[in-house]
Amino acid sequence: MTAHSSPAASARPGRRPGTNTTRQAVLAAARARFAADGFTGTTIRRVAADAGVDASLVMQFFRSKNELFAAVMSVPADALEHFSGAFEGPDDGLGERVARAFLDVWEGDTRTSEPLMAMLRGAIVNDQANEQLREFIQERFVAAVTSRDADADADDAMLRAGIVSSMLVGLVVGRGVVGVPTLAKAEREKLIMLVGPAVQSVLVPTP
Amino acid sequence: MTAHSSPAASARPGRRPGTNTTRQAVLAAARARFAADGFTGTTIRRVAADAGVDASLVMQFFRSKNELFAAVMSVPADALEHFSGAFEGPDDGLGERVARAFLDVWEGDTRTSEPLMAMLRGAIVNDQANEQLREFIQERFVAAVTSRDADADADDAMLRAGIVSSMLVGLVVGRGVVGVPTLAKAEREKLIMLVGPAVQSVLVPTP
Repeated sequence: MTAHSSPAASARPGRRPGTNTTRQAVLAAARARFAADGFTGTTIRRVAADAGVDASLVMQFFRSKNELFAAVMSVPADALEHFSGAFEGPDDGLGERVARAFLDVWEGDTRTSEPLMAMLRGAIVNDQANEQLREFIQERFVAAVTSRDADADADDAMLRAGIVSSMLVGLVVGRGVVGVPTLAKAEREKLIMLVGPAVQSVLVPTP
Repeated sequence: MTAHSSPAASARPGRRPGTNTTRQAVLAAARARFAADGFTGTTIRRVAADAGVDASLVMQFFRSKNELFAAVMSVPADALEHFSGAFEGPDDGLGERVARAFLDVWEGDTRTSEPLMAMLRGAIVNDQANEQLREFIQERFVAAVTSRDADADADDAMLRAGIVSSMLVGLVVGRGVVGVPTLAKAEREKLIMLVGPAVQSVLVPTP
């Protein structure tokens, strides 16, 4: 992408109208494909076919599979807000709120869940996705916890937050990626009921 | 491998002595390489170089990367015994014993931990590894729990076991594969102290 505003861009010779719409269609197709098939399993050719455009156009927009992946694999802002919201409020019920927010975001609206799932599926084979997931767990989630209680031992609070987020990612992966039958078929409310107290026990130190 | 005993095999014309040793060296190299670089990142050529043999010899033994992977990626019997052992004994301290057994097996002796790590790293991109991990969580771990208490609601006990194993896998992945700094640098005993009560709260229903 250049710094040109879009009217200037569309005035360039040879530039067809609808470039931005096409780009969005490619991004949407890539998001769905990376979320379903992972980084390795996704090809530029397949994304192009899903979006109904030529593969050369995808290359023109994004240059490589890596850059296309980077463009789709961002943690959506409303997902972050949803997490932060769960950490507000009293200690009582914190574990349940966090477990619920996690499942909401990861298994809800595809616009939010697909970039997250793409990140997860990519994290083991793609360095960018790995870094993104590491940063997501370390920075974002941990920040939400430490901002809760300024007096707490910061290292201890970060470790507790890191444990909870990696365990909840494990649950989402077991359910949605690995597809462990007993987890995949469980009702979300039942999961929250069982996982909430576990999350609570890690996040809220007993005096 | 054929059903021939090894003296018969070594008597075959053209068969060099030391075939079995070479095969073991290739397996050891493959185990370490798949554990460190994952299924996608590992090449036959690289495994052959690590083992100090020609790539054609690796192909002669295992025919494909998939078959080589299948040969190294089994859950070791002593790992399974270690898990079963953790489930024996009183409810009191069960969560801590299970968390400890999990970290022991996954982060201990490379002979045990490498096949498990190879399975984890492969599970998102390789169907065999995915199936193996799914079966490991669903069958092995769940079996250990349900055998504990024959009177328990079997579906409920399986769900609890599935949650715990996916959460502990998440912790191991966050620490060892994704490399979340706060998890990677934590002492094992500190982790067990924080995770034990969470595991306990999922496994042992409060009346």
